[in-house]
Amino acid sequence: MRLYFSPGACSMVVRMVLNHVQEPFEAVPVDLSAGEQRAPGFRAINSKGKVPTLVREDGSVLTELGTILAWVAARHPEHGLLPTDNEARTRVQEAVEYCISTIHALGTTRIFVPSAFGKAEDEEAIKAEGRRIVGEGLRVLEGRMAGDVHLADELSIADFVIYWLALGAVMSGLPLPPRIHHDYTAMQQLDAVRQSLTDEGFV
Amino acid sequence: MRLYFSPGACSMVVRMVLNHVQEPFEAVPVDLSAGEQRAPGFRAINSKGKVPTLVREDGSVLTELGTILAWVAARHPEHGLLPTDNEARTRVQEAVEYCISTIHALGTTRIFVPSAFGKAEDEEAIKAEGRRIVGEGLRVLEGRMAGDVHLADELSIADFVIYWLALGAVMSGLPLPPRIHHDYTAMQQLDAVRQSLTDEGFV
Ligand SMILES: N[C@@H](CCC(=O)N[C@@H](CS)C(=O)NCC(=O)O)C(=O)O
Ligand SMILES: N[C@@H](CCC(=O)N[C@@H](CS)C(=O)NCC(=O)O)C(=O)O
Repeated sequence: MRLYFSPGACSMVVRMVLNHVQEPFEAVPVDLSAGEQRAPGFRAINSKGKVPTLVREDGSVLTELGTILAWVAARHPEHGLLPTDNEARTRVQEAVEYCISTIHALGTTRIFVPSAFGKAEDEEAIKAEGRRIVGEGLRVLEGRMAGDVHLADELSIADFVIYWLALGAVMSGLPLPPRIHHDYTAMQQLDAVRQSLTDEGFV
Repeated sequence: MRLYFSPGACSMVVRMVLNHVQEPFEAVPVDLSAGEQRAPGFRAINSKGKVPTLVREDGSVLTELGTILAWVAARHPEHGLLPTDNEARTRVQEAVEYCISTIHALGTTRIFVPSAFGKAEDEEAIKAEGRRIVGEGLRVLEGRMAGDVHLADELSIADFVIYWLALGAVMSGLPLPPRIHHDYTAMQQLDAVRQSLTDEGFV
């Protein structure tokens, strides 16, 4: 398997989950600041011009963070990263979808790629709106954390996505609500998370 | 069941799918232009302040378009709106996720709610960027349409989401690529779609 990634981008969530289930893969960097994702070479692999892009063993290409995570989880059922119970799985998917379609797409991206949301002169206002959206998003998630540590009863793909959003929040100076902070700290103890941080140059 | 909706908003996709599987529900309008979604009364139901919001028979609240659609599809397996084959289901989810997290969140919303993306003086530039994103998104989907009519071999939840995005594209003067146009026309023949358009005041 081959994962196209950019250091620290949302593709890092795929790396963490692949590491966690001990799925071997080759990691290929895509230089987003140089626009490599929009070059014909990469568009031929993923016409969307985005990471994460996963090339599976049979050569087929899978895209979209939540879909990739669910596919990896289903491939490694022994890790239980996606509950088999219908209601529990629905709740995990609901959290993952909120993280991706609202907090990441509209919040985190405004903070880290403000140029995608307006002119250079508006950069500070765009980043501030991003922080507002991420802050509100984390508070919504906080209200849905099932228990003391993880989103659901057990570790799930949602915790990896929430961890990555929380990492971005911390890096941009936002405080974490208590349960999110607890989950964040628990995630940071996982070998797969630590390894991924090292691999992408964070530590 | 109770569906909180706003006419023409992405909640219409839930209405179409509920109509299609003949699930009875009560539809409750939320006046987005008056900011009703952010009022304490509605926030108490859905802290995200968004439609679609589905209150299920047991009173529990489900949010996020893709998650709601997958849940309704799983409740009515006889309609086959979410394939049971793992690979086919993964492809449907990938399309739905792309529609929601990229085309809708970043494209359609810029066209119909430009104020969420910047100042009034930039409105035309914001709408133009939204049309660019929707146009590119529809071209990406076009390249993934499996056959002549629907995204997958059979009608799936993805076709309802694509139909709604295509409707927004048409309303904003964007041309539809040929296969998307074919799917759009096929969808428009469905009783559930026609009923939903009538119910939300489109025809
Ligand atoms: N919802 C999409 C988001 C993908 C996305 O926005 N990826 C970013 C990195 S976090 C990217 O590739 N940006 C490059 C660009 O937009 O040009 C997914 O889950 O795949
Ligand atoms: N990805 C979210 C998007 C929900 C969303 O943005 N809904 C819009 C209507 S299409 C809304 O409620 N807007 C009101 C607002 O943002 O204040 C979902 O699937 O539920």
